[in-house]
Amino acid sequence: MSIYTATTTAPVNIATLKYWGKRDKTLNLPTNSSISVTLSQDDLRTLTSVATSEKFNEDKLWLNGKEESLGSERTQNCLKDLRSLRKQLEDSDSNLPKISEFGLHIVSENNFPTAAGLASSAAGFSALVVAIAKLYKLPQSFSEISKIARKGSGSACRSLFGGYVAWEMGSEEDGSDSKAVEVAPVEHWSNIKAVILVVSADKKDTPSTSGMQTTVATSDLFQWRIKEVVPKRFEEMKKSIIEKNFPLFAELTMKDSNSFHATCLDSYPPIFYLNDTSKKIIKLVHAINDFYGETIAAYTFDAGPNAVIYYLEENESKLFSIIYKLFNKVEGWSSKYSSEQLGEFNQEFENLKSKIDFALDDELYKGVSRIILTKVGPGPQDTSESLIDFATGLPK
Amino acid sequence: MSIYTATTTAPVNIATLKYWGKRDKTLNLPTNSSISVTLSQDDLRTLTSVATSEKFNEDKLWLNGKEESLGSERTQNCLKDLRSLRKQLEDSDSNLPKISEFGLHIVSENNFPTAAGLASSAAGFSALVVAIAKLYKLPQSFSEISKIARKGSGSACRSLFGGYVAWEMGSEEDGSDSKAVEVAPVEHWSNIKAVILVVSADKKDTPSTSGMQTTVATSDLFQWRIKEVVPKRFEEMKKSIIEKNFPLFAELTMKDSNSFHATCLDSYPPIFYLNDTSKKIIKLVHAINDFYGETIAAYTFDAGPNAVIYYLEENESKLFSIIYKLFNKVEGWSSKYSSEQLGEFNQEFENLKSKIDFALDDELYKGVSRIILTKVGPGPQDTSESLIDFATGLPK
Repeated sequence: MSIYTATTTAPVNIATLKYWGKRDKTLNLPTNSSISVTLSQDDLRTLTSVATSEKFNEDKLWLNGKEESLGSERTQNCLKDLRSLRKQLEDSDSNLPKISEFGLHIVSENNFPTAAGLASSAAGFSALVVAIAKLYKLPQSFSEISKIARKGSGSACRSLFGGYVAWEMGSEEDGSDSKAVEVAPVEHWSNIKAVILVVSADKKDTPSTSGMQTTVATSDLFQWRIKEVVPKRFEEMKKSIIEKNFPLFAELTMKDSNSFHATCLDSYPPIFYLNDTSKKIIKLVHAINDFYGETIAAYTFDAGPNAVIYYLEENESKLFSIIYKLFNKVEGWSSKYSSEQLGEFNQEFENLKSKIDFALDDELYKGVSRIILTKVGPGPQDTSESLIDFATGLPK
Repeated sequence: MSIYTATTTAPVNIATLKYWGKRDKTLNLPTNSSISVTLSQDDLRTLTSVATSEKFNEDKLWLNGKEESLGSERTQNCLKDLRSLRKQLEDSDSNLPKISEFGLHIVSENNFPTAAGLASSAAGFSALVVAIAKLYKLPQSFSEISKIARKGSGSACRSLFGGYVAWEMGSEEDGSDSKAVEVAPVEHWSNIKAVILVVSADKKDTPSTSGMQTTVATSDLFQWRIKEVVPKRFEEMKKSIIEKNFPLFAELTMKDSNSFHATCLDSYPPIFYLNDTSKKIIKLVHAINDFYGETIAAYTFDAGPNAVIYYLEENESKLFSIIYKLFNKVEGWSSKYSSEQLGEFNQEFENLKSKIDFALDDELYKGVSRIILTKVGPGPQDTSESLIDFATGLPK
């Protein structure tokens, strides 16, 4: 039995200019362009291996060790598009094996808990599409391929690139110009880091797809956001990245997170993703920036209560002297810092203590279940690892 | 010593179309028109007595039994305008005593705790201005007088009328057309009642004046709210009141509360008035309306976490069967209902219980410190009561 296989990794991305609202639900076409930072795969990544063989009668998927259904319309749309591109190749070159007709085995694993609400679907669909594109040896650019990932999960298209990524909304009805492009590679501005505060949620939030539909249909303020606010901010934010202007990038990021959540609140019935802990983190970041007299940190919140705080590496001790003080009881520090380094953050806080003019809520950590320390990172990577047994075509 | 005195009561009003944003801070000119419901003075009112005499050398104020400063610019502006109108009368009729030149003693008391965050300044400035207008026997209409109250506290102008009141923003730079008018008197739609859930706040919120300034200066979405959203909603809401269309009135009220809080969240730095308890109350009201398949209740939130829920008297047992179940441990029921009546709400809940398809949070009451049960009511009232000793001109 000849088995063809390919493997890739793909990253998580966290939007700094938010995607919220679909103009076409099936094609996942957005009502506005968006921008994101791709996070390091050392901390958050999906690893996906795919295999195909004439012996495979059907498509099969194993996610984090468990066989799952491939039946969702979105996944089916991705597979259909990828097979169609492979078919074009096969039709134009009769020497190529007709693997587009074979079943696919897909095995995928995250290096982080799915339950944390960390945009795992973006990394997941990105890895799925890239792995199959490699398997099929598709000649298309990653921007072209990103249109297929977009059909799986809108924000997945941005995980096709590393560094700083724009998803251009496009204007065509068939979505042919709604794709991800690189704003700048990770090397351009490699000293951006991120703290993710995983905030404990009471219960499940409104799923983002239905939330978006409610906002588009009912929020008056949303129409202004997509027509006037975002187009201007999109250009300003790209410029702030090109110019590596952190204070501007940070301000635009915070404003856009607030604008997105404001349109959720303006929906009917209103949608709430930020809880009291999220709000306290927002106030904390503003207090820290005020305290230092410069914008050293920027929060952003997706469709959930988790905070992602971006900062420049050179400001880490300024930020962590306060953040570590407040959240040192939360799991996640020791995997990145020695106890000596953590001691230095403590020492730094002691030095500052008498000057701190804002209240430090010593119970705030109770609303946070985990801290993830990461940074900007590259796009999908090749790897020699494989999750599939080459002999059987099944998960190892 | 001849002493001239006058006394009035004035009500609290709670906006259903929110006032948020000043185009002129000194004159309290708003960026949009607003609408409110005047609440019954049986439950919430200010009682103000004023006296003047040639023996009074200076203006003095006693609030809830304590002497307070009259030095604020806003209060001074009110007194100046009232004296100026009295002076015009005196100039045109030399028989009138020249009381505009005398000192004023002002004694004021609320029948509710100021600390509860219940728009006491609206009732306070309304009572102050009406009492002095009576003392001075001013011939101006209440709409004219409302312009003076507006300078004390913007929303105070709406407390000059009972029932349903509009504050027309006007367009003149001097504020001469920014005044309150009656949309409909209490008799027109007398069966609207209100439950106020006083929500415990962590700490003091952003004061509304500085909050408004931040929103006007920084929120992109706010510009759309005042230009497009509110003008349309203002006409629709007036119509819903004229037509006594509760479901429409309720929907517009809830949407406008959410829209106002959305522009607060879109401010930079963002302003939060709703806390997790407020949000749970919002979800509860939507769940109750969904459960009954009709809009029987409408929430609205001012610049704080307290919920005001409007409903029609005929739907009281539908609403209270659920509300009393959730908040029966909170103080405020027994002053309005006998234990027999409360038992009926309990019984009603037992009858419904098996049909209720949404989660009832049995800890929600812990976030609520007090419940106030009230209804729509009339405007300022004459009273034979006086807080001033006619002999001494001092508080009784």
